[in-house]
Amino acid sequence: MDINILFVFDIIGTIAFAISGVIPAIRNRMDLFGILIIASATAVGGGTLRDLLINVPVAWLHNLVYIYVIIGTVIFAIIFRNKLVYISETLSFFDTIGLAAFTLIGIEKALEAGFSPVICIATGTMTACFGGVIRDTLSNKIPVIFREEIYATACIFGGVTYFSLHHFLPQDVVTVLAGLVVFTVRILSIRYKLKLPTVEFKPGI
Amino acid sequence: MDINILFVFDIIGTIAFAISGVIPAIRNRMDLFGILIIASATAVGGGTLRDLLINVPVAWLHNLVYIYVIIGTVIFAIIFRNKLVYISETLSFFDTIGLAAFTLIGIEKALEAGFSPVICIATGTMTACFGGVIRDTLSNKIPVIFREEIYATACIFGGVTYFSLHHFLPQDVVTVLAGLVVFTVRILSIRYKLKLPTVEFKPGI
Amino acid sequence: MDINILFVFDIIGTIAFAISGVIPAIRNRMDLFGILIIASATAVGGGTLRDLLINVPVAWLHNLVYIYVIIGTVIFAIIFRNKLVYISETLSFFDTIGLAAFTLIGIEKALEAGFSPVICIATGTMTACFGGVIRDTLSNKIPVIFREEIYATACIFGGVTYFSLHHFLPQDVVTVLAGLVVFTVRILSIRYKLKLPTVEFKPGI
Repeated sequence: MDINILFVFDIIGTIAFAISGVIPAIRNRMDLFGILIIASATAVGGGTLRDLLINVPVAWLHNLVYIYVIIGTVIFAIIFRNKLVYISETLSFFDTIGLAAFTLIGIEKALEAGFSPVICIATGTMTACFGGVIRDTLSNKIPVIFREEIYATACIFGGVTYFSLHHFLPQDVVTVLAGLVVFTVRILSIRYKLKLPTVEFKPGI
Repeated sequence: MDINILFVFDIIGTIAFAISGVIPAIRNRMDLFGILIIASATAVGGGTLRDLLINVPVAWLHNLVYIYVIIGTVIFAIIFRNKLVYISETLSFFDTIGLAAFTLIGIEKALEAGFSPVICIATGTMTACFGGVIRDTLSNKIPVIFREEIYATACIFGGVTYFSLHHFLPQDVVTVLAGLVVFTVRILSIRYKLKLPTVEFKPGI
Repeated sequence: MDINILFVFDIIGTIAFAISGVIPAIRNRMDLFGILIIASATAVGGGTLRDLLINVPVAWLHNLVYIYVIIGTVIFAIIFRNKLVYISETLSFFDTIGLAAFTLIGIEKALEAGFSPVICIATGTMTACFGGVIRDTLSNKIPVIFREEIYATACIFGGVTYFSLHHFLPQDVVTVLAGLVVFTVRILSIRYKLKLPTVEFKPGI
């Protein structure tokens, strides 16, 4: 896949993820610094954890565009905060593009670093999901993706698609198809309110 | 010590630690993905933090057996969840084997990387204890080992034993003895309900 | 700047930050191990995160003086805990020296590792502020610096001062001036109860 297209989606994801940090930070009555840190952690936290684990340079330390995009997004999101709440469906659309892009970036970075498919799927999922985990942990909540949403599952489906097709189709096509799988699984799960099952102990335990 | 025996204990510890993640995750009404992540964080979180700090490759990224053991354990633990609660004493026994094994692995990895005894004891304790800290933090609780249990203390005793004997006895014997110290201190503290002291402020402060 | 003077301030900061971990740990009824870990995380957590991100050896693993200073401080702080609460203004003074020292150390370490000014300011701020973030997260609270205090802002002002003067004045003078800016902004914000603004959603959102 043309790296520039993945980069465009990466930036769209960064913006959408940063916004998904700004809104709860405002609700938690954080100040401007708090809002900025929560937005940053949501947007680049997953990729940072990935880069530390696979021992490659942390992306946003070497490419300032992420910091500038996040700062711009935070300013924009604070100014238009009352409007943002009404376009949550649109936001969710961009968020899902980010989910797909982050998953693929995570997979391809780990693959390039020589890791096995299982680890690549794990780092792809981590790239896409752990920003939200860090956001919720810093906001003193149990991470929402551990409880309610088909989010990580979409990434895992995309990852499995990626490595199923990897040897049969050109790289670009595989990337696009895997991204579409992430996108579609997530969108369908929102539309039909699909959730992963939970389990319970017998009453009295 | 024969590395294979330490490896067997390592796997026992991984299983026991993963189970000790599954149970509270179910209680917190997490979905299957949440349960898997909490179990993984409990089992490999301490070792991951250690590897990042001492700057060696993160173990579970390079040896898939940990991921497979955790996935298997999670499936098993979910199926038999109602039974597990009744064998908490047995679980606690395996958990203590894991505590000893993880401590020794943490000590020996840091020693191999050239760190001083004080740091080796710290990384040994971290390997054994910080999975639980991450589990509790992700579950939105103050980590239980900061408050209630002789857990880290057992690791520190084992570490001090290790470096006290290090120059006088063969390596294998030292590893076994240090592991037994961790095990014994922990088991005695459970049996006699020993706790580390807490301190308080004067009333009114 | 003479490295020894920065080192003296570094140790003063380590002591003050460790104390700022001990007090809430006691209030949270943690045991001795919990108090030690919270004190350590507050004192070296920010620097540890910085070193991991910029991929240099983690400072306290290679220089045991930090561990010994923290252990000594914890013992001292526990013994004199009832007195410490009455000298919170003095503590706040030393804490602010630590804030300035940690910011400068963070900036200079990242600069030495070849990072751009924006990243150096970010790592300086992180060095000074993220110990407190980790302390609060492990204590199951929303980090106080995300909500209430001019703390990170002082670091950012200091960092901007540093790079504004960097090409015009001798290195030592720049370091001293930037440190004074951090110190002054923080002290003024305490005296005049300055806070960063927060924003709110319209009622009903």
